[in-house]
Amino acid sequence: MPSPERQAAARAGATLEIDLAAIAANWRRLRKAVGKGVRLGAVVKADGYGLGAARVAPALAKAGCELFFVASLDEGLSLRRAVPRAEIAVFEGLPRGSEGEFARARLLPVLNDLGQVDAWRRFAGRGRARRGAVLHLDTGMQRLGLSRAETARLVDEPARLDGIALAAIMSHLACSDEPEHPKNPEQLARFRAALAKLPRAPASLASSSGIFLGPDYHFDIVRPGAALYGINPLPGKANPMQPVVRLNARILQVRDVDAGETVGYGATHRLDRPSRVATIAVGYADGWLRSGSERGGAAIAGQRVPVIGRISMDLVTLDVTGIDARLARAGGSVELLGRHQSVDEAAEAANTIGYEFLTLLGRRYARIYRGMR
Amino acid sequence: MPSPERQAAARAGATLEIDLAAIAANWRRLRKAVGKGVRLGAVVKADGYGLGAARVAPALAKAGCELFFVASLDEGLSLRRAVPRAEIAVFEGLPRGSEGEFARARLLPVLNDLGQVDAWRRFAGRGRARRGAVLHLDTGMQRLGLSRAETARLVDEPARLDGIALAAIMSHLACSDEPEHPKNPEQLARFRAALAKLPRAPASLASSSGIFLGPDYHFDIVRPGAALYGINPLPGKANPMQPVVRLNARILQVRDVDAGETVGYGATHRLDRPSRVATIAVGYADGWLRSGSERGGAAIAGQRVPVIGRISMDLVTLDVTGIDARLARAGGSVELLGRHQSVDEAAEAANTIGYEFLTLLGRRYARIYRGMR
Repeated sequence: MPSPERQAAARAGATLEIDLAAIAANWRRLRKAVGKGVRLGAVVKADGYGLGAARVAPALAKAGCELFFVASLDEGLSLRRAVPRAEIAVFEGLPRGSEGEFARARLLPVLNDLGQVDAWRRFAGRGRARRGAVLHLDTGMQRLGLSRAETARLVDEPARLDGIALAAIMSHLACSDEPEHPKNPEQLARFRAALAKLPRAPASLASSSGIFLGPDYHFDIVRPGAALYGINPLPGKANPMQPVVRLNARILQVRDVDAGETVGYGATHRLDRPSRVATIAVGYADGWLRSGSERGGAAIAGQRVPVIGRISMDLVTLDVTGIDARLARAGGSVELLGRHQSVDEAAEAANTIGYEFLTLLGRRYARIYRGMR
Repeated sequence: MPSPERQAAARAGATLEIDLAAIAANWRRLRKAVGKGVRLGAVVKADGYGLGAARVAPALAKAGCELFFVASLDEGLSLRRAVPRAEIAVFEGLPRGSEGEFARARLLPVLNDLGQVDAWRRFAGRGRARRGAVLHLDTGMQRLGLSRAETARLVDEPARLDGIALAAIMSHLACSDEPEHPKNPEQLARFRAALAKLPRAPASLASSSGIFLGPDYHFDIVRPGAALYGINPLPGKANPMQPVVRLNARILQVRDVDAGETVGYGATHRLDRPSRVATIAVGYADGWLRSGSERGGAAIAGQRVPVIGRISMDLVTLDVTGIDARLARAGGSVELLGRHQSVDEAAEAANTIGYEFLTLLGRRYARIYRGMR
């Protein structure tokens, strides 16, 4: 009797296979890249970069990860059910009035401004034990975290941290995927200068690419995200990470088309020779981004088949002229992500980055998790 | 006691309001655009263009819609629970071996090739009553549907349709949003020529934009999708449809930033004056596409605030310099979609079309449905 997962996969237009063992292996790979004294967390925000935090986080916990990062309180509350014992920090900080929810679910708020510091201190003051939190200093993203002016005030008024147990002081790099960018040492210097004036606490600066900037950037805690999911943390160089996802689509139909006919919306693609066109059950509503129209491709038995015409909401048309008809047939399979196309490559064909492509992979795919019981 | 919907909205980073009454009003608006003898269906594929087919379809059914279109068998099975009595047609046709599931859920397969015609006839032959289906003729998309050669064979061998009750014969226009495109009359002529040779059945050619090509294109059934959800079926002209969605994001933090500082990843945006930057809890993982970096915008109390820097996975940074600090403050609200920015406009800023932008609107938004009990 096939599992419900397998049955759904047999019927679905496309199947996304997620290799939890590869995610765990990537975590261990990064474990080796940092020193023994460095703690390795894992970022599982945006539902584990689209791959399902409820499955990814337990796999990482089993590999030894005890510290997770999510974007929002809601993500934190969901994740708490998946990893009951782990530490969970919430990047977006402390929404007004949510202190009790953070405490009940044992979530660490990332305190992003002095208002949040003050709110958490007041809340902590009501209890006996100190309340854990992460303090976020902005050193050049201008996105979240205490500004330099706020950091200076906190240095002058250290009592504002009374009752708060700093699980970490963190910052975030803007250009860590460009090792030569002058912003990297600039942020490093700013971070060090601030740390020197604040109470001692574990420090954290690097996420995936930052780990590869070297030990100066590691401090006490590193926070990889994308690299765990197989995204290359070293753009332009060989990817040190294992691939994690495979996406295979079912061919709905294959047709012979006369030269001179056009394919798809807007009649933008005119065939200059008699051709065979395969239509697959994936479209931009599934995150196969429309910007890959006429640019992207797929593979059938290892041979590249280019996208022709515009990508539709639910369908993509591929030029399968010259591909063995026993393979390029209705019911046959096309590889969209896997051995012949990485997430980063598919993203580049859609004019974006692997991070975005991965997180937008859609909900209509049958999902199969491999590599963990 | 606030509803769970309201509580989720109060805490969420952003709230997507979906106006079911506006969707119903758009359906009635199209009702008037076609003659009395024309049947008006509704396309609710891709989970109702991302807005939730389980909520959208019942609202349309209440407005009088009795015929729905989805992409896949799985979507059909889900929709059957939402609209128990309606007709539901499945565009992607009949996967091998799925005849029993179609019959049990009373779904109409859209027969896209002769193999599917034959499979449905064989299945129909086992029962007493004829089995309903939609026959799809390709007239120029080269995507799904019988090719001209297959259509010619079916004309020569009409017994292949024995036992099949044709609920419709359909085709699909490639360029209906370009009224002057020569492909429109070409597809119309091909469709008419094929209909003349096939058994009589209700004919259907037009979807949203096709309706506005005029009565020649209406035939017996029209199949609007995007227009129901407020997407402009007449690009470049005034939108005849009511807006359906509003998206408001919460400001997480507002900061004063010195001139010369950079904002966001890659340090691509350098501020040339002292500025105020607001960060909101929406990012490309929520479908706020990265291609809108440095191009898109939002509104605070009706005033435009541009996106500055790159859009991140969970966050967008906005230049709120000069906006009243009582409005541009942590906890304040920013309009992303609504009165000051339509889906089509937001899509254009992200270099795509409203269809894609709408269907990718993400899962982390709190969703509030208005306009129906």
